Amino acid sequence: MNDNLLMKITQKDKKAIARALTEIENNTKLSEKIIDEISSSFGKSYRIGITGPPGAGKSTLTNALVKKLAEMNFFVGVIAVDPTSPFTGGALLGDRIRMSEIGTHPNVFIRSMASRGSLGGLTRFASEAGDVFDYAGFDFTIYETVGVGQSELDIANSVDTTVVVLVPESGDSIQAMKAGLMEIGDIFVMNKSDRAGADQAIASLQFILSFREHDEKSWLPPIIKAIALEYKGIDELYNKILEHKEFLIKNDLLEFRRKQRFKARIKELISTQLKKELWTLERNKLLDEKIKLIFEKQLSLSTVVNQLVDSFRNNN
Amino acid sequence: MNDNLLMKITQKDKKAIARALTEIENNTKLSEKIIDEISSSFGKSYRIGITGPPGAGKSTLTNALVKKLAEMNFFVGVIAVDPTSPFTGGALLGDRIRMSEIGTHPNVFIRSMASRGSLGGLTRFASEAGDVFDYAGFDFTIYETVGVGQSELDIANSVDTTVVVLVPESGDSIQAMKAGLMEIGDIFVMNKSDRAGADQAIASLQFILSFREHDEKSWLPPIIKAIALEYKGIDELYNKILEHKEFLIKNDLLEFRRKQRFKARIKELISTQLKKELWTLERNKLLDEKIKLIFEKQLSLSTVVNQLVDSFRNNN
Repeated sequence: MNDNLLMKITQKDKKAIARALTEIENNTKLSEKIIDEISSSFGKSYRIGITGPPGAGKSTLTNALVKKLAEMNFFVGVIAVDPTSPFTGGALLGDRIRMSEIGTHPNVFIRSMASRGSLGGLTRFASEAGDVFDYAGFDFTIYETVGVGQSELDIANSVDTTVVVLVPESGDSIQAMKAGLMEIGDIFVMNKSDRAGADQAIASLQFILSFREHDEKSWLPPIIKAIALEYKGIDELYNKILEHKEFLIKNDLLEFRRKQRFKARIKELISTQLKKELWTLERNKLLDEKIKLIFEKQLSLSTVVNQLVDSFRNNN
Repeated sequence: MNDNLLMKITQKDKKAIARALTEIENNTKLSEKIIDEISSSFGKSYRIGITGPPGAGKSTLTNALVKKLAEMNFFVGVIAVDPTSPFTGGALLGDRIRMSEIGTHPNVFIRSMASRGSLGGLTRFASEAGDVFDYAGFDFTIYETVGVGQSELDIANSVDTTVVVLVPESGDSIQAMKAGLMEIGDIFVMNKSDRAGADQAIASLQFILSFREHDEKSWLPPIIKAIALEYKGIDELYNKILEHKEFLIKNDLLEFRRKQRFKARIKELISTQLKKELWTLERNKLLDEKIKLIFEKQLSLSTVVNQLVDSFRNNN
């Protein structure tokens, strides 16, 4: 069953890929086996992150780029990260509807993912989903993230090229700057560039980017004018992504960064495992007792921290 | 020196408070002593989070609320969280300028904090800063967070009352919903409510909130119409905050939640300490060797995770 599933993934079977992603998302027993098998063969799929403030048209741009890639006969996996409401249960549709059209293309696999407030879980799932696409032999994995915030920074750390989508509306650039988007972007797209103020917005963006430290060996982020709804600027975006990939390869950065990311991921898994082993029912009770003593001022916070760490290390 | 600093904090000395916050932010040796001393005396300062999408007027509202509280003779500490650009170095001013006026009031202490992309650090600093205000005997601690994202969810988990600020502009409510703001709000403020579409926006907000699970014992989040720039709706906001506080006390939730938060914080400190002890130079090298073996398919990912965890637990 397991081997069969893995084999089907290498045949790019959509049902098998969907099944693997669900196992991983739900952190099942089987998912551990899947991850063990696929995690050593990463590096085939080029990972692109598409991010930006709400309303910038990220979904439309993702849709257009995926269409372009599919037309070029590439295989593309898309992970759309959608913060969702715990009390309604499901992911909100909205922008997702537009993507379903391209989702039926044989070369394209799209998965919407609810972030459920668990940031660590999101980042972990995002990289493991990328590994599944890698194992399947997909050419590209695209992460589309809604909103601005820490999750974008984390996903930017797990992709090869980060595309930041902005719109000409005044204030957007400063908001984006606040959100730290300026320093994560490898490529900037000024979407809806037929609107008033587009050239001004590009000029101010160029000004902001000029503060980024750079030398002759560093990548200068291009700014692309686009109207994603009309597929304008998509060819240029595609070319710039390939250019950025070449740049990374030429400077030995692609492999290097991927190894760094893999190492960070293992460290994260080890932390999770440590926490699982640490917080037994017994040690949870012990902590409750110690907290009482802190409130009674009989123990200090740092003493309790050290006592718990020591108890874990000694009582194997 | 240390005792003197602590004493001055209890006298609400602004310089001493500023010094303590800087020590904590920079994670100095002295900060550990400060935290040990202050962490057992929490619970005096009522913690309020003010959050919402960019452009909703959070700073203006915070400013107005702080002014109201100061007029009522309360002491108020404000932590304004400002995601900032690593490459420009400093925090962006913008909205902050407006707040400096109220910052000179003797009852008010304002601290701007750059989040620097380190989410854990931000959450930790936020609660420790609250402890400093607690120790100083401040009546209120207000957290103002810019943007929408995971940091808001985390800060919502460390306050007693969360105020979500929205504006009538179409699309905002759905964006806020996506960002998970709907389920963290204890009180909603429709700011700039003189703009077109305010009543419609309130109606749709009410509709969304009606999906929130509730029984007769749960809090129904009120929606307040405000124009923060003109100080309209601020008295009502103030009253609703006190009402929510009463509700939490009556249902034994205030103490209970604070204890839960304290426990979560200690667990976080223990995790940090474990990581510090785990990742010695030696074990980092060991991990590099193991990663090579993973790529050569001689070891699986999960085996490496378990080996590292075991090496830590056995080789005390």
